[in-house]
Amino acid sequence: MGPGPSDVSERVLKALSQQTVGHLDPSFVTLMDEIKSLLQYAFQTKNELTIPVSAPGSAGMETCFMNLVEPGDKALVCINGVFGGRMKEVASRAGAKVTALEFEWGEAVDPAKVEAALKADPDISIVAFVHAETSTGVRSDAKAICALAQQHNCLSIVDAVTSLGGIDLNVDEWGIDAIYSGTQKCLSCTPGLAPVSFSQKAVDRIKARSGKSDSWFLDLNLVMGYWGEGVKRAYHHTAPVNSLYALHEALLILHEEGLENAWQRHSQHHNALVAGLDSLGIKMLVDADIRLPELNTVAIPEGIDDAAVRSALLQRFDLEIGAGLGKFAGNAWRIGLMGNGCNKQNVMHCLSALGTVLAEQGHDCDPAAATTAAEATYA
Amino acid sequence: MGPGPSDVSERVLKALSQQTVGHLDPSFVTLMDEIKSLLQYAFQTKNELTIPVSAPGSAGMETCFMNLVEPGDKALVCINGVFGGRMKEVASRAGAKVTALEFEWGEAVDPAKVEAALKADPDISIVAFVHAETSTGVRSDAKAICALAQQHNCLSIVDAVTSLGGIDLNVDEWGIDAIYSGTQKCLSCTPGLAPVSFSQKAVDRIKARSGKSDSWFLDLNLVMGYWGEGVKRAYHHTAPVNSLYALHEALLILHEEGLENAWQRHSQHHNALVAGLDSLGIKMLVDADIRLPELNTVAIPEGIDDAAVRSALLQRFDLEIGAGLGKFAGNAWRIGLMGNGCNKQNVMHCLSALGTVLAEQGHDCDPAAATTAAEATYA
Repeated sequence: MGPGPSDVSERVLKALSQQTVGHLDPSFVTLMDEIKSLLQYAFQTKNELTIPVSAPGSAGMETCFMNLVEPGDKALVCINGVFGGRMKEVASRAGAKVTALEFEWGEAVDPAKVEAALKADPDISIVAFVHAETSTGVRSDAKAICALAQQHNCLSIVDAVTSLGGIDLNVDEWGIDAIYSGTQKCLSCTPGLAPVSFSQKAVDRIKARSGKSDSWFLDLNLVMGYWGEGVKRAYHHTAPVNSLYALHEALLILHEEGLENAWQRHSQHHNALVAGLDSLGIKMLVDADIRLPELNTVAIPEGIDDAAVRSALLQRFDLEIGAGLGKFAGNAWRIGLMGNGCNKQNVMHCLSALGTVLAEQGHDCDPAAATTAAEATYA
Repeated sequence: MGPGPSDVSERVLKALSQQTVGHLDPSFVTLMDEIKSLLQYAFQTKNELTIPVSAPGSAGMETCFMNLVEPGDKALVCINGVFGGRMKEVASRAGAKVTALEFEWGEAVDPAKVEAALKADPDISIVAFVHAETSTGVRSDAKAICALAQQHNCLSIVDAVTSLGGIDLNVDEWGIDAIYSGTQKCLSCTPGLAPVSFSQKAVDRIKARSGKSDSWFLDLNLVMGYWGEGVKRAYHHTAPVNSLYALHEALLILHEEGLENAWQRHSQHHNALVAGLDSLGIKMLVDADIRLPELNTVAIPEGIDDAAVRSALLQRFDLEIGAGLGKFAGNAWRIGLMGNGCNKQNVMHCLSALGTVLAEQGHDCDPAAATTAAEATYA
């Protein structure tokens, strides 16, 4: 129950461990096509270029910037946590002139400020932001920000590492141009792959580049030859075959449940967890209207030893919760309710274990009352 | 029995499918340390910076160039197949001024020509070449080339994707500065990771860079904080936890067998395969003294339909052999004997199946005689 990797189901682990076949084997090419379709469903898009990059989510971020940025391009990067800051760094290394738009930690990206920044500099051609900030547990209004990007003739780049499969996300309806995610959050697949999707406008820009991307490995003009249409696939690199078996299975599970049911489930168990945490006297750090149900950032109660609590939870209760990251280090915990790990049993286990450890440390709380409060939300 | 991914053992697949833990979990940090030690053994090095990059072998190549090259650095890139050509491309994108030294396909890199090129341009500071060319099945003399690099004050970058665990390789003794490999060849792990190792001289150069690497994801100055010494690890990206379980097991298997025994085994079964292929009237494309035992490149007999044979082998005999790549496309097959797949049973199965299909296509050969010829080499 940390900020990811989340619990991986037995079904996904079993798929992962099937015998490895060649990355150009006809049966594998069929599986690749199915992965593309299932990813289109998860992203809610018809984008042809919807594939998993053969590396973790951070490489998905780099894929977006290294392919869409040409040296000197102006990019507006919104920063309301660690991952917005990482976007700035990656965009700069790709050669962008970055305008950083900073927000307080724990707050969402403000569309009004995005609009003002775009009006102030008409040369900006890329708008980048994080949909679900894993460092703070904040959801930003991706639909509004992408609409502004379109109005100002900008491409949008969206970090959906922690949002895909956990909260409302609609790539085509919202007009997102480039989006990346990870497999180890709400998809509950093993870590190591980065699903990405690109609009036709983004693909056109990639195809029309005046110079090559700095990265050969992430160059979509080459990667498209392997993941493209038809049976004939051009070898680019050796695909991580087994990890793709696992992703296929994880996406199948999401499809079976249905996207909206998955979003609803995350919301339901989040409500139960919040009720229980409230009963324990633990404060949420993020306002209710912009909270991520899948990642709950809470204030560490005064006088409580951060590391000692997390260590006790891990050693005695086999429970991982996340430390604070960046500005929140030492002040916050991050409790994940992601994908396969987002269920009632985990909510109750967390409240019970956390309440027990906190009470031992002198915090005034009643674990039994917390689980009762959580239980009441399911009624 | 293609050019990789090779057969993955049940032991490795079982390790792969263990439950995912957090990438900062204390138990995982212990496993990371063991992986580093086991990789040091496999590479025969004491290099502290010996780790698996969280992406396939091509990303290992990119890691070497993106970290060691600064814009304008002169690099000598030796090309005797597809992967030397890829090195040139990756080096150029990293900003190097590349001098390409080309050799015929099927021939080794000639150290005398490397020496002449280094003498001709004293500004060259990097020498890059492929130890085991997967596109041709050729072994180059890494020891001699790296010695020349040292004499001329150059760093050496060595592609060991297909050599690690299959043939003699000694990073420290040969004075290799930067080396990368893949997991899916002679280590017989699943594809998706790139073991790399860097000498102190290379690390010093990386630490002393005047500008940042273009890639944030592959920036070793950051990655070192996660894979570095001690219990305290700085989060960089979410490591591919399950793939690392598998690599740990694959390296353990190699350690149990012993490196020299593994090299010997590859040589032994290669000799058997060659005897059988000779009996079938199939010619090796590479001279015996520079042949890779783990990757056997053979001429497709005249009048034989390349695709039809490979398709029949796959569909009727559950056997993959590799197509020719690059200049060898349509003219050659590549028969892998890698890692776990390098055994007598596979040699016999391949000779029998290939002989049967070729005979059906009108090629004059006797599958039974081929297996008898192979069998005789084991005596």
